[in-house]
Amino acid sequence: MNFYVMTLFPDMILSGSSDSIIGRARRNGLISVQAINIRDYTEEKRHGRCDDYPYGGGAGMVMQAQPVCDCCDAVRAMITEAGGDGEHSRLIYLSPQGRRFDQAMAKELSQERDLILLCGHYEGIDERALELCNAEEVSIGDYVLTGGELPALVMIDCISRLKKGVLGGEESALIESFHDNLLEYPQYTRPEIYRGLSVPEILLSGHHENVEKWRRQQSIERTLRRRPDLLKDAVLSKKEEEYLKWIQTQ
Amino acid sequence: MNFYVMTLFPDMILSGSSDSIIGRARRNGLISVQAINIRDYTEEKRHGRCDDYPYGGGAGMVMQAQPVCDCCDAVRAMITEAGGDGEHSRLIYLSPQGRRFDQAMAKELSQERDLILLCGHYEGIDERALELCNAEEVSIGDYVLTGGELPALVMIDCISRLKKGVLGGEESALIESFHDNLLEYPQYTRPEIYRGLSVPEILLSGHHENVEKWRRQQSIERTLRRRPDLLKDAVLSKKEEEYLKWIQTQ
Repeated sequence: MNFYVMTLFPDMILSGSSDSIIGRARRNGLISVQAINIRDYTEEKRHGRCDDYPYGGGAGMVMQAQPVCDCCDAVRAMITEAGGDGEHSRLIYLSPQGRRFDQAMAKELSQERDLILLCGHYEGIDERALELCNAEEVSIGDYVLTGGELPALVMIDCISRLKKGVLGGEESALIESFHDNLLEYPQYTRPEIYRGLSVPEILLSGHHENVEKWRRQQSIERTLRRRPDLLKDAVLSKKEEEYLKWIQTQ
Repeated sequence: MNFYVMTLFPDMILSGSSDSIIGRARRNGLISVQAINIRDYTEEKRHGRCDDYPYGGGAGMVMQAQPVCDCCDAVRAMITEAGGDGEHSRLIYLSPQGRRFDQAMAKELSQERDLILLCGHYEGIDERALELCNAEEVSIGDYVLTGGELPALVMIDCISRLKKGVLGGEESALIESFHDNLLEYPQYTRPEIYRGLSVPEILLSGHHENVEKWRRQQSIERTLRRRPDLLKDAVLSKKEEEYLKWIQTQ
């Protein structure tokens, strides 16, 4: 899978995707990450300027349509040249105004061959550029960041992990978070007692079925306590429904 | 404000916080970011190992309590030595199992003098370590990532922007996203016509009041279309309530 990131800070994208599992996937050729500098496409060559004041007033600067659109055209041509369908490749604009990114969207996007990510800065991007580039707006959460670079890296990390071969055997279980729309149960590893705290006895019992039951109950309880909003879409057995009702009355 | 990041990948934290506005804030001494390598604290000196198999079975590895707790002790001592209250400094564990990070939490955390961020890897961290370190679990969104490093950088970026002096005058309006719990209105900048698309005429009218009204309406319409969940906490005037009802019937 190929990620094309349109940005004013290409170094952030390249250094941010060179470590750990994502760096390994890039070196193994399972994914590619290219950072394209929007500034290279501005017609204002003297200072390489890409922003201007907003029409209608207000603080902050707005990225201009011209460098963004010309950069987008170049990236789409690049994709087509590499054998993809540049014209129809999906382009995601990272912004707090977008649809919320989640694990389901990551799964859907991981089916793409090529994905273009557009990072804004300043007060945003001229709306016409978003229209002309056929941008889908996506937000990684309800908070404001300096630019789209960290969100782009978050999306690349999350999506890449779902590609075959990117995670090793030992790591693959990691994608199980949000299984049945529940939070994960607590984990323990050696030693049995640490600073006076013991591992829950049931985990040492070797009784697989009881361990599973305990873990599910922990997941349900945690989700209720921390993220009750997830419960309405949770997939629970009849017995688990009863357990949930019971702990709600405690 | 001082960020102390406990991680197995200190380079990711340092390079990820050296560009753009955050890099400038660090150089200007408005914030500091220190990355502390958890691996330096493991008692398993031969391979520097920090993880082991989970009790009760299952795929994936779990970070052990010992290196995490000893690293935490060291960081708290570091903070106290620097004049802070290390023992009571808040420690945030980045994980999909946490409370959801948002702009309100960022505002709250920006009041802290020192903040410790703990980055997990593998299948998570031994639950006892979280208890012993007095960790608060926080999630930047409902998706699974390789580790806590990108989420830590997201939090550092978002929180730092709220500190006085970090944003210049022209940038300061950026924090206005989610004002009144609405998404932002579309932005336009020069030229007036680009590839056949014109700036909405009202923005060129110079009539400040009408511009404001149009922008609010755009915000309301966008929020309704993209993030209706935000509307229940939106702050609207009577007239705006009516406008919302009207567009809902269109």
